[in-house]
Amino acid sequence: MADAPYKLILLRHGESEWNAKNLFTGWVDVNLNEKGEKEAVRGGELLKDAGLLPDVLHTSLLRRAIRTSQLALEAADRLWIPVRRSWRLNERHYGALQGKDKAQTLAEFGEEQFMLWRRSYDTPPPPLDRDAEYSQFEDPRYATLPPELRPQTECLKDVVVRMLPYWFDGIVPDLLTGKTVLVAAHGNSLRALVKHLDAISDADIAGLNIPTGIPLSYELDADFKPLNPGGTYLDPDAAKAAIEAVKNQGKKK
Amino acid sequence: MADAPYKLILLRHGESEWNAKNLFTGWVDVNLNEKGEKEAVRGGELLKDAGLLPDVLHTSLLRRAIRTSQLALEAADRLWIPVRRSWRLNERHYGALQGKDKAQTLAEFGEEQFMLWRRSYDTPPPPLDRDAEYSQFEDPRYATLPPELRPQTECLKDVVVRMLPYWFDGIVPDLLTGKTVLVAAHGNSLRALVKHLDAISDADIAGLNIPTGIPLSYELDADFKPLNPGGTYLDPDAAKAAIEAVKNQGKKK
Repeated sequence: MADAPYKLILLRHGESEWNAKNLFTGWVDVNLNEKGEKEAVRGGELLKDAGLLPDVLHTSLLRRAIRTSQLALEAADRLWIPVRRSWRLNERHYGALQGKDKAQTLAEFGEEQFMLWRRSYDTPPPPLDRDAEYSQFEDPRYATLPPELRPQTECLKDVVVRMLPYWFDGIVPDLLTGKTVLVAAHGNSLRALVKHLDAISDADIAGLNIPTGIPLSYELDADFKPLNPGGTYLDPDAAKAAIEAVKNQGKKK
Repeated sequence: MADAPYKLILLRHGESEWNAKNLFTGWVDVNLNEKGEKEAVRGGELLKDAGLLPDVLHTSLLRRAIRTSQLALEAADRLWIPVRRSWRLNERHYGALQGKDKAQTLAEFGEEQFMLWRRSYDTPPPPLDRDAEYSQFEDPRYATLPPELRPQTECLKDVVVRMLPYWFDGIVPDLLTGKTVLVAAHGNSLRALVKHLDAISDADIAGLNIPTGIPLSYELDADFKPLNPGGTYLDPDAAKAAIEAVKNQGKKK
């Protein structure tokens, strides 16, 4: 067992083909676009410049997070570190909204319903049929999960519930051995983790956005509480600008 | 425990920056060049076309093997599978030859000595000083290995000895659970494994070359003996042509 402080770095994947198209993505396995690839490389350069070198990587099972981690670690000269992956780090499953245009959805259902699905803590969108076009129910990567674990929609609360076991069982043990841990994941799985770390209320988490591609560094005490609440972005100015931009998502004209 | 046959796929990394320059590489962590990247993608397409989809990946700690696996798995839509890495799958450490030009070395030491270092089973090149330019003795990725495990030169016999524990302890358990295993590694660490699988003699292994970027598939019986001795290349014609090309390496004019 190593002593605290423990070092944790969170990295949200860069822009994907569907971010740029303004579509709800969720568990659909879209790739990074060119901007997203550049963001990932920049994220790795920030890690290298800060001398904050990960000893182990945890990712979701989605390629936009996996490729972000690969590009970032290559830029940081750390491609060789051990890797663990878990569906528990996946993005929130967006239910029947997966594949739908955000602006169209806003127009169709109105701002109140739209914001409820996007930002309420415990209201999931309608479930996605198992055999729908954008369903992952039969995807081989989830074949070892019992059907009741394979979501057909999720609210952020659902993400917290399914993500936390991996935090406790998969990530904390690495931190306890003194390793600097990099978690490459998604807007909502990282919000779920930050909610837990910073003890953010169910109401306040709605206002928290995590920008893409900018490593967010935490130092944790012996009880895994942040010594730097809210974490520290390795490029604070870019983070601030990006947080504003995320807030305006879905409001494109 | 799953029943035999067990499915094993070997993949040698594509051409690297130093392959193309005709330099001895060994443990020097050079990247793929553009040709090598294309070979890796093609390797993944061959896997996909054959319906031979890996369930788990094992790689060395060297980026040319890691990136080959990443590009191949992306092409095969299997980027999400679990990954394990080990220094035991690394290329042969080429000792004092690391970083040296192959043609110059041939001219300087003569063909007999040159071929002895390249192809004899148990004659390693002179050891590389721990603090030499192309030494990896202090590389952080090997920091958890006791110094006596960090090679300063290796012959193929040394590679067999240090690779086999990973075969038995790391790879066989995955095969036993019925997983299709992909091993992304290097010319000599894969020759060491093939020597073991196909029970090739110390003398005969000298004549065995494994081409880059073409998946080599084995079906193994309950005793982990090949049902298809020598394995099956997914593109046999390309493999045959490439094997000839490797044989002529170091004989550039």
